[in-house]
Amino acid sequence: MRLQSTPKQDGFYMPSELAEHKCTYLLWPERPDNWRMGAKPAQAAYKKVIEAIAKHEPVVVGVNQSQYLHVLGMNMKNVSVVELSNNDAWIRDSGATMVVNGHGEMRAVDWGFNAYGGTLDGIYFPWDFDDYVAAKMADIEHVDRYVPEMIAEGGAFHTDGEGTLIVTEETMLSEDRNPNMTREEIERDLCEYTGCEKVLWLPYGVYKDEDTEGHVDNICQFVAPGKVVLAWEDNPEDPQHERSVKDLEYLESVTDAKGRKLEVVKIHVPNVITITEEEAEWIDTVEGTYPRIPGDRLPASYINYYNCNGAVILPIFNDPHDEDAIRTLQELFPDKVIETIYAREILLGGGNIHCITQQVPKV
Amino acid sequence: MRLQSTPKQDGFYMPSELAEHKCTYLLWPERPDNWRMGAKPAQAAYKKVIEAIAKHEPVVVGVNQSQYLHVLGMNMKNVSVVELSNNDAWIRDSGATMVVNGHGEMRAVDWGFNAYGGTLDGIYFPWDFDDYVAAKMADIEHVDRYVPEMIAEGGAFHTDGEGTLIVTEETMLSEDRNPNMTREEIERDLCEYTGCEKVLWLPYGVYKDEDTEGHVDNICQFVAPGKVVLAWEDNPEDPQHERSVKDLEYLESVTDAKGRKLEVVKIHVPNVITITEEEAEWIDTVEGTYPRIPGDRLPASYINYYNCNGAVILPIFNDPHDEDAIRTLQELFPDKVIETIYAREILLGGGNIHCITQQVPKV
Repeated sequence: MRLQSTPKQDGFYMPSELAEHKCTYLLWPERPDNWRMGAKPAQAAYKKVIEAIAKHEPVVVGVNQSQYLHVLGMNMKNVSVVELSNNDAWIRDSGATMVVNGHGEMRAVDWGFNAYGGTLDGIYFPWDFDDYVAAKMADIEHVDRYVPEMIAEGGAFHTDGEGTLIVTEETMLSEDRNPNMTREEIERDLCEYTGCEKVLWLPYGVYKDEDTEGHVDNICQFVAPGKVVLAWEDNPEDPQHERSVKDLEYLESVTDAKGRKLEVVKIHVPNVITITEEEAEWIDTVEGTYPRIPGDRLPASYINYYNCNGAVILPIFNDPHDEDAIRTLQELFPDKVIETIYAREILLGGGNIHCITQQVPKV
Repeated sequence: MRLQSTPKQDGFYMPSELAEHKCTYLLWPERPDNWRMGAKPAQAAYKKVIEAIAKHEPVVVGVNQSQYLHVLGMNMKNVSVVELSNNDAWIRDSGATMVVNGHGEMRAVDWGFNAYGGTLDGIYFPWDFDDYVAAKMADIEHVDRYVPEMIAEGGAFHTDGEGTLIVTEETMLSEDRNPNMTREEIERDLCEYTGCEKVLWLPYGVYKDEDTEGHVDNICQFVAPGKVVLAWEDNPEDPQHERSVKDLEYLESVTDAKGRKLEVVKIHVPNVITITEEEAEWIDTVEGTYPRIPGDRLPASYINYYNCNGAVILPIFNDPHDEDAIRTLQELFPDKVIETIYAREILLGGGNIHCITQQVPKV
C-alpha cells in the first residue's frame, strides 16, 4: 500500500548495505539497443553475478515475460525467477530502497525514476516499466511503500546506516532530475526518505560516467561507519586524477552525522577501457537510446562492487590493477569471500555489479 | 528450483485449506471473450472478494501488465499487486498447490495445465501463460517446486490434510486431461504429489459445470477430517438431484484414509440461474473460446466458498437458498465470520470464489 508519510516521520531508516540481507534482486538484461548481440554476452555475465550471490544469499531475478522461460529453464539454485517488466536492467536505480525500524518492520521507498534525465537527457525512452520496478519489488516483499515526488536513483546515494548519506553534486544537482528543487530541498527529502541526518556532497563521480552523470556508487562506498573506499587515479595527466583529488580533499574536510572524521582508502581504477569496433557492431541503433560508439571511454571502477552476506562481488577487468583491488578489499573485509567477476560486458552497458543489484535487508 | 523427486518421497504433504494460511493469491480477470463488458463487472466482484479476504489475511493479486496500473491504483490495504501474466483468472486451477513438511518447510506442486482439456476440449487457447502461473507463484514465495507430468487443476481435488483426497471421476478420468494414464496411475500420482494415502472418487460434479467437467470444488468440500458438505438438490425433476444422490450414496459407502466413515452435511443449491440476453451481449466472440450463450444454465453452488483465516468467503446469489447456506456454514464454523459476496458476475465466467483463490499455508 502507498503511504502518505515519510520514513523519518515513522521511525524508519535505510540500513547500510553491509547489514544482513534477506535477499538480493536483479533484473535480466535484454534490450538490444544497449546490450550487444541481443544481450547474450551481458546475460552470461549477469548469470555469473547471480550465481555468485546465490552462493551466499537468496536471489530474485525479475524478468520480462519475453525472457521468462529462458531464465526459468536455467534452474539456478537459491534463485527465484519472477516476472517483472522493465525497460533496462539497473535495479540499483529503478528498484526500491528498503527501510527498516527497530521493531522488525520493513517498508519500501519508491523514488521517482526518469531514465537518468527524462526527456531532457535520459538514456532511453520510455521508462514506463522501470518507474514501477520499485512498487513491484515492494509488493513481492509484501511491504508498504513511500513514494517521494523527487527523482533519485539508488546508485546516487550510499549510507553508513548511522545517519550519513553520501552523494555527488554532479548527479543530485543535475538539471534533468529535479530542476525545481534547491540543494537544500533535495538534502531535506533525501534525509526524510532515508532517515539520515547529514548528506555529504562529493563534487565528482567517475570521469565519463555519462549515463548516470556521476553516480556515487561508482566512485565511493562506505566500508564501515567512518570509513570509505574511493576510486583513485595516480596519473595526473588522466582526467580521473583531478576528480579523485577533489573528492579526497572534500572527504578529508568533513565529518559524518556522528561527528567522525572519515578514513579514506584509495582503490586505483583500471587502465583506460574503450569500446572496440567489435563491441559496438551488434548493437541496435534506436532513436532516443544513448549510443555506444567505438573508441568511447568507459567509466570502469572497482568501487562498483556489491556487498552481500559473507561476500564482496567484485568486478574485475583482466587488468594489472585487479590484484590490488582484490587485496585491498580482502584486507578491509577479512571475514568475507571476494567473488570476482570479469565484468567488461556489464560495463559496456554503462554500469557495473553494484548498479545491477539491490539488497533487501533482513528484519 | 525444479525438483526431480515427489513430495511423498520427501515427506511433504498438502495441508487442508482449513489450516492456517500465510496469504491468498488471486489473478485479475481481464479477457473480454470470457468476461462481459471488458471484464469490468467481474473485476468489481473480484475486488470485493480481495477486500473481504484482506480483512483476514494478506492477499497477493497477480495481474497482467495491461491491468497493472489500474489495480495498483486501488491501493488496497493488506494487498500486494504483482505482475503475473495469465490467460484467465482461475488461480485455483493454474496456481501452485503448496505442500509442507513437519519442519517448517514449504514447496510447490506445479501441475500440468491445459485450460481444462487442451486442443481437444479446452475452453480457451492458448494457455501458455497459465501453465507458468504455478512456477511464478512458487518463485514469489521463494520455494522450490515439483513438476508432475500429469494434468490436474487445483479445483479438481480437496484434501482433509490427514491423508484423504477427494476428486470426481468426471474430471479426473476425462479423456482430455491424461488420456494415457489409467485410473490407478492417476490415483498413484495424485497421492505422490499431495502426500495423500487414499483417493475418494465421487462420480459426479455439479450439473452443467461444463468448463471444468465437474470439478469437485463446486460440489463437495471438507469442513473437518471425516466431515464434508455436499451440494444438494431436493427436486427430483432437476438433473442435479440424481447427481447429488449418487454422490451421497458414494460418500456413505466409503471410509477415509484413517478408516473413518464420513459425515455429510447437505447445502441446497440456489434456484436455476441462466445467462440473460443482456449478460451475453457484451462478450467478444473469439474462435477457440468457450461461448457464453443466453439461456445456458450456470453451475451455481454454495460449495464453491473459500476458507481463509477466520472467515468463510461465501458466494451468494440473491436467492431464497442464500440464508440456509449462510446458516449452515455459520453452524459448521462457529468461530468464523461468514463474508458473503454477491457472485453472479464470477459465475458468469464459469466458476466461483473457490476457483479464483489459492492459499499459501503458514509454516
